[in-house]
Amino acid sequence: MAEKKLVEQITSMDEDFAKWYTDIVKKADLIDYSSVKGCMIIRPYGYAIWENIQRLLDARFKATGHENVYMPMFIPESLLNKEKEHVEGFAPEVAWVTHGGSERLTERLCVRPTSETLFCEHYANIIRSYRDLPKLYNQWCSVVRWEKTTRPFLRSREFLWQEGHTMHATAEEAEAETLQMLNVYADFFEKDLGMPVLRGRKTDKEKFAGAKATYTVEALMHDGKALQGGTSHNFGDGFARAFDIQYLDRDNTLKYCHQTSWGVSTRIIGGIIMTHGDDSGLVLPPAVAPIQVVIVPVQQHKEGVLDAAYALRDRLSKVARVKVDDSDNSPGWKFAEYEMKGVPLRVEIGPRDLANNSCVIVRRDNREKLFVSLDDVEKTVTEQMEALTLALYEKASKNREERTYTATTLDELIGIAAEKSGYIRAMWCGELECELALKEKADVTSRCMPFDAEPVGDKCVCCGKPAKTLVYWGKAY
Amino acid sequence: MAEKKLVEQITSMDEDFAKWYTDIVKKADLIDYSSVKGCMIIRPYGYAIWENIQRLLDARFKATGHENVYMPMFIPESLLNKEKEHVEGFAPEVAWVTHGGSERLTERLCVRPTSETLFCEHYANIIRSYRDLPKLYNQWCSVVRWEKTTRPFLRSREFLWQEGHTMHATAEEAEAETLQMLNVYADFFEKDLGMPVLRGRKTDKEKFAGAKATYTVEALMHDGKALQGGTSHNFGDGFARAFDIQYLDRDNTLKYCHQTSWGVSTRIIGGIIMTHGDDSGLVLPPAVAPIQVVIVPVQQHKEGVLDAAYALRDRLSKVARVKVDDSDNSPGWKFAEYEMKGVPLRVEIGPRDLANNSCVIVRRDNREKLFVSLDDVEKTVTEQMEALTLALYEKASKNREERTYTATTLDELIGIAAEKSGYIRAMWCGELECELALKEKADVTSRCMPFDAEPVGDKCVCCGKPAKTLVYWGKAY
Repeated sequence: MAEKKLVEQITSMDEDFAKWYTDIVKKADLIDYSSVKGCMIIRPYGYAIWENIQRLLDARFKATGHENVYMPMFIPESLLNKEKEHVEGFAPEVAWVTHGGSERLTERLCVRPTSETLFCEHYANIIRSYRDLPKLYNQWCSVVRWEKTTRPFLRSREFLWQEGHTMHATAEEAEAETLQMLNVYADFFEKDLGMPVLRGRKTDKEKFAGAKATYTVEALMHDGKALQGGTSHNFGDGFARAFDIQYLDRDNTLKYCHQTSWGVSTRIIGGIIMTHGDDSGLVLPPAVAPIQVVIVPVQQHKEGVLDAAYALRDRLSKVARVKVDDSDNSPGWKFAEYEMKGVPLRVEIGPRDLANNSCVIVRRDNREKLFVSLDDVEKTVTEQMEALTLALYEKASKNREERTYTATTLDELIGIAAEKSGYIRAMWCGELECELALKEKADVTSRCMPFDAEPVGDKCVCCGKPAKTLVYWGKAY
Repeated sequence: MAEKKLVEQITSMDEDFAKWYTDIVKKADLIDYSSVKGCMIIRPYGYAIWENIQRLLDARFKATGHENVYMPMFIPESLLNKEKEHVEGFAPEVAWVTHGGSERLTERLCVRPTSETLFCEHYANIIRSYRDLPKLYNQWCSVVRWEKTTRPFLRSREFLWQEGHTMHATAEEAEAETLQMLNVYADFFEKDLGMPVLRGRKTDKEKFAGAKATYTVEALMHDGKALQGGTSHNFGDGFARAFDIQYLDRDNTLKYCHQTSWGVSTRIIGGIIMTHGDDSGLVLPPAVAPIQVVIVPVQQHKEGVLDAAYALRDRLSKVARVKVDDSDNSPGWKFAEYEMKGVPLRVEIGPRDLANNSCVIVRRDNREKLFVSLDDVEKTVTEQMEALTLALYEKASKNREERTYTATTLDELIGIAAEKSGYIRAMWCGELECELALKEKADVTSRCMPFDAEPVGDKCVCCGKPAKTLVYWGKAY
């Protein structure tokens, strides 16, 4: 049988990073386009990555006491309008349902861009006493934001996400929850995805519509642009006052609840691609790889080779997600195909390996070849997957280190922003005016005010007045 | 501490079955209402049932070679219009998005009522050759149908479901897939949910808009009304022709693909309630119960009782989903609460049990008390959960048997329909006219033409002409 297709050439990342990205999402079979403008079809290989992300995060959410629920996908206009800052932030980008069948609705409904208002209405219904608190809910669903320009995973009109919404008796508890969930995200990014993240706070300009404080985990992509990986918001009692969510405390007085929300979305998949990928395609961290080990039989027509490959699959299936490719395509074609798909480990097994009771393991990240005894192959595979995740983390950390600059004057910052791509650390007075000026003069936005950051001076890089905080500035997806 | 609340009285099912049902969904904390008319909030306890349903079905789908994907939630009007029967069936009940932000869309989009058209467009893009077949995709998502009258789980404007959509090279393969998935559903209903189902075919009037044949698993509720549990459709090549989905076969000619789709939804939860529930509340089959065993300490202030309860929880957690209720509510309150929630097994442990190295296990379905040694309590719990599922199945089968009637004349059928509630087996000529006449005269619809059914005569119960098939007639949710 002829080979199905040769792996098509993809654009080099140094030549055109944006084109490289869209080549990968298409050629690794992650997504397809449809006639629904600005939305994407998530294909089996892409969706399996999302299922792994869901499984790993959902276990962390449940381990920290959260329960899943499902809210309606529609929000009546009057409900969306209840919290002023929130509606101002979201109304310009929602999709409106105006008709059910052939009838015009008496009130139009938006397709949820986020569900704070629905959760608030429900919490107002079910919270009566301090005994009902905390409420720790999460939901996995899709949301819609009517974006003008879209890119697969990074910005699309519909995307999949989870949104946690919690209610607490005190401000302290709400703040602790907000930070706990930020740390849950950071742990997932660093340990499972091999992606180093900055943990910190967003400026008022960049925070969520209606939040008192927004915290973020921020990742730096291979090209030096930042990606907001996940956010965790402390709402204080602002929504609780707008929706009248009160509880009767132990002291027999009515008090407003304190609220948080936090979310990550399918844009994580875009982040994985742009952090770890290379010119041969995807590089997937084993924790979320749909196939962790692909076994490629060499000279598979020779006696015993395929049987050995299947036997190896059965053994390795106890420690990994394994596939044997026993198709008629050549080993060379298979090597390229699974490199494109970012499969962490390739195992080659042929007549010579059989004679030696061994196999060859090739790592996707560094292409290192290991000649491994079959006796303890399960152990080697487990170790190599862990080593690969660590190596991805190291490589991404090194990239971030090399792409982190410091500016103490405005000219310096403008110069770096013009010539380099990465984070620029610089002091800030806390005024919106300076934030806007830096956007205009250097085309950078504030990404994050990292916790416990060392100051790099005492004056605002923009206006020269006394500085309040260190900010990481940059360009972002 | 005072008790949080006493379990509120629910309406008796014999007195008012519909009211009993809505009492249960509210008081067992399955759902809540919101300002989004016709939609429901699925609360943690209800959603956990759905998560278990998803997990059990998804494993069966994957074991039969299916892959999950995600399609956009919107369908452009022109795409929905491509298959004539399909659009006629669904257009009257879809929700229309007409604006994105403040702009009117050039083409309106409906929120998916089902996704055949989207899958077809995608399949037309990715299927080229016989080597690309079969395509076996499934998606878990929510869909919207603008119903006039709604009831939690049974009929709501938005509901959660899965929809499988597959493409095959031949008509035979498509038919085999359609029946395979019907059997997957039947197996799940009978083995995991303890719900006996009829497997059979729908009449043309009742089949899915655009399908060549619709198969169904039909369950009978406690009150004698039928519930369509899941459907599996063979589309033939109708959509493939409308969407031009062709493949190059081995013989180098272009051929149209043959297609299936199949789905079950959150209405399963309504079916579980109405099949197994009783006047004390829900009765959940262990396979989908969020809590399978609740441990209620008796005289929990006495030394060693709580420690023994926790130790028992740790042991039982290896074989079941277990909760200890160590709250200050009385044992009596707890008994009523977990009966309302349908927890399959209650384990009571107090000082006297401790002295005897035993505990008491009470089954939710028959309230039988078992005095059990702690030595092999894991084994007893496992056995009792299995026995409970079987007992639920037997009880529901008996109800169905008692509520299955046979009619050989029209008068007889009208009489039974007026006096009884259940299935009426009667022969049918196959003409729509007679189906409509039975609806008008006896207010029954055709539920199912079971496979391999024994005829009960040779003349149509309505017109007296030669009969083609046996039909189960009834009233349905």
